[in-house]
This record gives sequence, C-alpha cells and structure tokens, in this order.
Amino acid sequence: MLFNRLVIAGVGLIGGSLGLAARERGLVGEVVGFGRTEANLRVALDRGVISAYTFDPVEAARGTDLLLLAVPVEATGPTAEKFIPFLPLLPPVLPFVGAHPIAGTEHAGAAAAFATLFEKRLCVLTPTARTDATALARVRALWEGVGMRVEQMDMVTHDQVLAWVSHLPHLLAFSVMNAMREARVADIDLLTYAGSAFADLTRVAASPVEMWRDICLSNREALLAALTEFEHALAQMKAGVATGDGEALAAAINRARGERQRLTRLREQA
Amino acid sequence: MLFNRLVIAGVGLIGGSLGLAARERGLVGEVVGFGRTEANLRVALDRGVISAYTFDPVEAARGTDLLLLAVPVEATGPTAEKFIPFLPLLPPVLPFVGAHPIAGTEHAGAAAAFATLFEKRLCVLTPTARTDATALARVRALWEGVGMRVEQMDMVTHDQVLAWVSHLPHLLAFSVMNAMREARVADIDLLTYAGSAFADLTRVAASPVEMWRDICLSNREALLAALTEFEHALAQMKAGVATGDGEALAAAINRARGERQRLTRLREQA
Repeated sequence: MLFNRLVIAGVGLIGGSLGLAARERGLVGEVVGFGRTEANLRVALDRGVISAYTFDPVEAARGTDLLLLAVPVEATGPTAEKFIPFLPLLPPVLPFVGAHPIAGTEHAGAAAAFATLFEKRLCVLTPTARTDATALARVRALWEGVGMRVEQMDMVTHDQVLAWVSHLPHLLAFSVMNAMREARVADIDLLTYAGSAFADLTRVAASPVEMWRDICLSNREALLAALTEFEHALAQMKAGVATGDGEALAAAINRARGERQRLTRLREQA
Repeated sequence: MLFNRLVIAGVGLIGGSLGLAARERGLVGEVVGFGRTEANLRVALDRGVISAYTFDPVEAARGTDLLLLAVPVEATGPTAEKFIPFLPLLPPVLPFVGAHPIAGTEHAGAAAAFATLFEKRLCVLTPTARTDATALARVRALWEGVGMRVEQMDMVTHDQVLAWVSHLPHLLAFSVMNAMREARVADIDLLTYAGSAFADLTRVAASPVEMWRDICLSNREALLAALTEFEHALAQMKAGVATGDGEALAAAINRARGERQRLTRLREQA
C-alpha cells in the first residue's frame, strides 16, 4: 500500500478514475471524496470510487497522506488554500507534486470514471528545485501503479508541449465551429453537409466550457506563441491559394503529409 | 439497365467503386476502363471493376452512352477534350452533368475500390441552364442506383459548401502539421506527445498532394472567403487569450460547443 488515506478533491472523470484504479489495485487504504455537489459524491460512493466523503476540509485533511487536487485549473489554488492549514505536512517543505495524467474522454463526473482510464497512457510530472524527493517518488509510484508511463518535465516545457498538442487544436476546433456558424451560403445549413473530415477535425469543440476557458487563461504565453506560429503557416498556404502558386501549395501539403504519416507510424508503434 | 456501355476515365477509388457497384447491380452493360497506368487497369480487370480496358479514346468512345470523368480536378478538362470529338453526342447539346459523390477513403487506385462505397452517402449534382434534362435524369438514376442520396445545387453554391465542410478543414490540418514541424520546444519531438485530439484534428493532413493542390487552386475564391472568416473567428479567440478576457472566451467556447453538439445530433439522426 502506497498511501493510507487518499483525499480526492474533485471526484470527476480523472479523480474518480484514480480512486477506482487505486482501490482496485490495493494502492490505497481509505479514499475520501471532497467536493461541492453531494449528488456526484453519492454516485462516487455507490460506485466504489471512494469509501467516504465530506464537505469539511478539516475533517478531510486529518491523517491524510495524499491530497489529490483534481479540480479545474483555476480552482486548484483556492482548493489547496482550504486544506493547507490542516494538512499534516506544512511549508516550507510542502510536498507538492504537479502531475498531468494525459488521459480523458468527452464525459465528466464520477459517473464517467473507470479504472482502466490511465492504462498505457502518459503522465507528466513537473517537479521543481523545491520538490520533495520522497513525495515525488511516491506520487510517481501511484501513477505507475495505475498503469501509466511517467515522464518528468519542467513546468514551462510541459505548458509549451501541451499548447501544441492539445490547446492549439482545441482553439482551432472552436474557431472553425464559430466561423461556420457565421457563414452564409445560400440558405443552406452547412452542418448538414459535414462529413467525417469535418466531424473529426471539430470533435473536441464539444469540450467543457469552463475547463477550456481556464486552460486558455492559465497557459496564455505558450498558447499565444503556438497560435502565432500556426497563423504564419496558414498565411503561407493562403498566399499560395491567393496567387495560384501550385508549386508552393504542393510543397506545403507534401511537408504536412510527411509529418502526419510520421504521426501515424509513431501511434502504430506505441 | 441504365447504360449499355460505360467508359470510366480514371479507374481509381471513385471510378472503380462505381464500376463495381454498377456492374453488381446490373445498371450497366459493358464497362470499359481508360487510364494512363496499365498495372492499375489490370488490377481493375482482375477484380471485376471493368470488363475491358483501352488506351485509345477513339476506341473507348465508340458506342458509349456514358463517359465518366473520374480523374483529378485539373485533369478533367484535358481528358474530356480527348474524347469529345469521338463521342456519339456532340455540342451544342453536350449532355454533360457535373456530379460530386461525397464519399471516399484515404486509399487510392482500383485496388481500393469497393461496391458499397456510395451507400447512403450524398451525391451533389450541379446542373446548369444548358444541362440536358434527359442526361441529368439518367445520371441521377445511376448514382441513386448505387445507393446514394442525390441533391441538386448550382456550381457556385456547391463550391462554397465544400470550401467550408472539406477544403478549409484540410488547409487547417496541413497548416497545423507545418507549424508544429517548425516549432522548437526544448529538444522535444512534439509529435510523440500527440493524443487522440491532435490525431483526429490532423487525420486528413495525410491526403494526396496533387489532389489537394488542384482543389485549392480550382476553388480559390470560396476557399479564400472561408479562410478569411476563419481567421476572424480565430483572431477573436486569440484576443480573448491575449487580454485574459475569460468572459469572452467562455462565450466563444460555448457557441462553438453548441454548434458541435448540433453536428453530433445531426449525424446521429442520419
């Protein structure tokens, strides 16, 4: 057993799945849910995601050896503040470990949690010079224990990588939907002509609003940098279309195609 | 039987699948393949896609009552010119019917053809004031005969619709791959961190180069208009990120999400 008492603040898809997986594998003893919505905590209890729940941070913190903050980005700080005065371990050696389990579905809440969510997926840990080595090792063991590959990366690099592989794609999907919503072509409902290319490109545009607002705001710098580079690549293709430069267009498409085929190979190897 | 002698110029995924489907359903008598590459035509013959093939437009045209031009966009005119002097029906009443069977896969050539490609998919016919009514009805019957829903639309509207639902998404996918190819984040290969959101968004970036160069060039005006509207929508989101305007971002994401959920419902009904 890695932890005697795990408190999960935010028993949603991620927090709930970790509860399920960690209990199933015997990695934790007690698992206490903490949240705002009793209905969700009841679902979690009924499904065996947690063994108890509370709305009281003092009670939750007592005797806990792991507090999982699995709340939306902007709620992380305020939630941590509620607990810090009551945690057994206090600053200056606050054993905080940043972790990003890169896994998810389009569903939310404890009802959507499942124990195999993390299997074979990547978890990025973002320790700093101040990170407690023992805490880091124990947190690493937990994510590995539920089936993840674990990598370490500094926070700035993590945010830049995610801006490219996740945040920029979401912004593009949102923007395509919004542009098409404003487009007027005869009196046609353009969506009725969308095929699989369009549907795949925009799938993530159905993602939760508050979650993505928070991500955009909290990763502003890296996201703006990726957006600017994207605009540059798009402008190059647009210039090729506008000037009818078939050679430049073919070269750009060919480069893109080569990279996309490389991605297919990487995913087949994984 | 709708046609006694169908000549397919371009026995690829589309032309070949029409040959297979039309033969299986008894809609055509003879099916003659015409193309540049004998190896592909042999595959077509072996697979029963066609009943014969030739490299001679004079021989191909003799007695034909339907010539299917299923070649890349830019090759359509030159290929038609080879046949026109020898076709049984000549201008001024040239019974040409523009048709876009909206179906496909990422594979190419007669080897990739299959008889069910068109089932339940949409075919857009683009008649003009000069289109021969009998020819239009017979062509419509053929596409319906292989299982398609058929709609009629003027060419300009067709090109605008396709710019939105297909051509713009391809350009965005190409541009994301090219931007990411130039991005430098530490010494990391960003593609190794791509998950399903990124993979879905960029799937069509693996599409054939010449085909998409031609489409970009031949639908320039509508594509530039869609691109400009997209850039506007993206700039709005970028401004929200840059200024930290969470309210504007949430509103934009919410609008996009609503439209994407509407697309999901439309596709579930279909």
